[in-house]
Amino acid sequence: MRAREVRLKSRPVGTPAPENFEIAEVEVPAPGPGAALVRNLWMSVDPYMRGRMYDRKSYVPPFQIGEALQGGAVGQVVESNDPSLKPGDLVQSMLGWREAFTAPAASLEKLPESNAPPQAYLGVLGMPGLTAYAGLLEIGQPKAGETVFVSGGAGAVGSVVAQIAKIKGCRVVASVGAEEKAQWLKSLGVDAVVNYKNGGLLAAVQAAAPNGIDVYFDNVGGEHLEVALELANPFARFVECGMISQYNNTEPAPGPRNLIYVVGKSIKMQGFIVIQFQHLRGQFLKDMTGWINEGRLKWEETVEHGVENAPAAFLKLFSGANTGKMLVKLA
Amino acid sequence: MRAREVRLKSRPVGTPAPENFEIAEVEVPAPGPGAALVRNLWMSVDPYMRGRMYDRKSYVPPFQIGEALQGGAVGQVVESNDPSLKPGDLVQSMLGWREAFTAPAASLEKLPESNAPPQAYLGVLGMPGLTAYAGLLEIGQPKAGETVFVSGGAGAVGSVVAQIAKIKGCRVVASVGAEEKAQWLKSLGVDAVVNYKNGGLLAAVQAAAPNGIDVYFDNVGGEHLEVALELANPFARFVECGMISQYNNTEPAPGPRNLIYVVGKSIKMQGFIVIQFQHLRGQFLKDMTGWINEGRLKWEETVEHGVENAPAAFLKLFSGANTGKMLVKLA
Repeated sequence: MRAREVRLKSRPVGTPAPENFEIAEVEVPAPGPGAALVRNLWMSVDPYMRGRMYDRKSYVPPFQIGEALQGGAVGQVVESNDPSLKPGDLVQSMLGWREAFTAPAASLEKLPESNAPPQAYLGVLGMPGLTAYAGLLEIGQPKAGETVFVSGGAGAVGSVVAQIAKIKGCRVVASVGAEEKAQWLKSLGVDAVVNYKNGGLLAAVQAAAPNGIDVYFDNVGGEHLEVALELANPFARFVECGMISQYNNTEPAPGPRNLIYVVGKSIKMQGFIVIQFQHLRGQFLKDMTGWINEGRLKWEETVEHGVENAPAAFLKLFSGANTGKMLVKLA
Repeated sequence: MRAREVRLKSRPVGTPAPENFEIAEVEVPAPGPGAALVRNLWMSVDPYMRGRMYDRKSYVPPFQIGEALQGGAVGQVVESNDPSLKPGDLVQSMLGWREAFTAPAASLEKLPESNAPPQAYLGVLGMPGLTAYAGLLEIGQPKAGETVFVSGGAGAVGSVVAQIAKIKGCRVVASVGAEEKAQWLKSLGVDAVVNYKNGGLLAAVQAAAPNGIDVYFDNVGGEHLEVALELANPFARFVECGMISQYNNTEPAPGPRNLIYVVGKSIKMQGFIVIQFQHLRGQFLKDMTGWINEGRLKWEETVEHGVENAPAAFLKLFSGANTGKMLVKLA
């Protein structure tokens, strides 16, 4: 079988551009013993992938130039040479950015029986959902009545954070970069939504969080982090999930001018990787499925079509073009 | 009884100066029912007092202009009108910066029976000691074999951190600003001492911590914090005790340019106030007394004499003139 894949052509300097990627067609081998051939239905693009485009030591190895990129995907088994999988099975893998692949069955995870659509396992029921759930509950430890501020509130992670914080009885303030995103979050019950593109972020968040901030879920960094430090209450928890405003910096940017509040306000600021919370996955799926079935947790998808448009989908993450989970439909 | 006290004459802008303080003589009233008159023997000057000289909301109220400053002190009861205290008793209070005072007996704490000198309860067995002990063990959670980096390593807090980390089986790297401080720490068994005044802090700490940093105990902030972020291992713990390099800033200084490592390296960075660890005081005194008696924990004092020299002693904290605990002997 022939299939197309997206390769890293060159390492981006600053904001990634289409010329950093190239499409190639390859022959997908028939599966040997213990392996399966999978056609991808959906693939995920996520901000963290920008980090893997740098050639540096990190918690995941860097992408290699000339090789296919990797990332979350769900697909359907076409041919299997392993008793654990049969044609038609839906499986999850880290072999996105390609239309099809052959891999050991042991490296594939069958999707659970569910009435959720398969691509939900790349979003609300997948890595971004667990990131939101575990980061907020384990590090943020929100208590009913506290104020939770989440930046990037309409993204795949942020929108789940906002809704779980509401379920936990918190006042929720979210920041977004577009009015339609603000409308969506308000329709979900978020108490106050601030459009950071309107300027005056500090005053706007201060007005939206009159009792100060107890939990800050950071997807953005930069000015958002400085504002959160300014408005933090004593013993606030800062869940450091991401700093998308900084990912494409060509020079290191100065940190917040008020970081000293970490001392004076006894703030806990903690980064994490979702892998450290894998042990929560059972409870996560149970809770999330329950909330979804009760109509208390909703999600949006922004969908591009075809593997050739995967780079464009990825680039759109940095201009905030997505509402909810950014996905590429491959078949 | 007449006694002198030190008052805040004006709020410092930038580095405090002698003219921000004034000495006054007051009449100390005879103790009414339930009160005692105490002559202070020793008073403490600590970097955190700089924060109380700003007129701003914080975890302790600001000092008021024209009023006596406050801080840790040990003294001897001269006259008591309460059955719990008798003349000659040694007591600890927050009524430093004065030669004598009258206060409710309930606000005074009798020093425990001990063969430690009374001023040790302002240092190694007092607030700075508990700050070091609880910050390192509760937030830093050092494990044997890990590397602990402590800035301000020859100070009242830092020198206790360094020694407890050694007792816990860690490799300890300390920074200081003078060669004689480095010699002292080496004599205590600290593995490597870096003099930050020699420049090249990053390279020096990197050479001293070839396996990276697992725990950073921050007393300094600024460049030290940036270096620690650069050299931090995944899941490092940053104990944010103080940022003395920033306390006299007249303009907010930019934060570390590499703060994004908190995300990428899953760092926990946590500020605290010693009051939150009061419940550990019994265990702290037991452990510390044991280590002192075994000769495993030592301390230094830098002593000024007379209440009129208390401002000078305080100012010397910011030029690093003290080795170990800075104290003022009052009687």
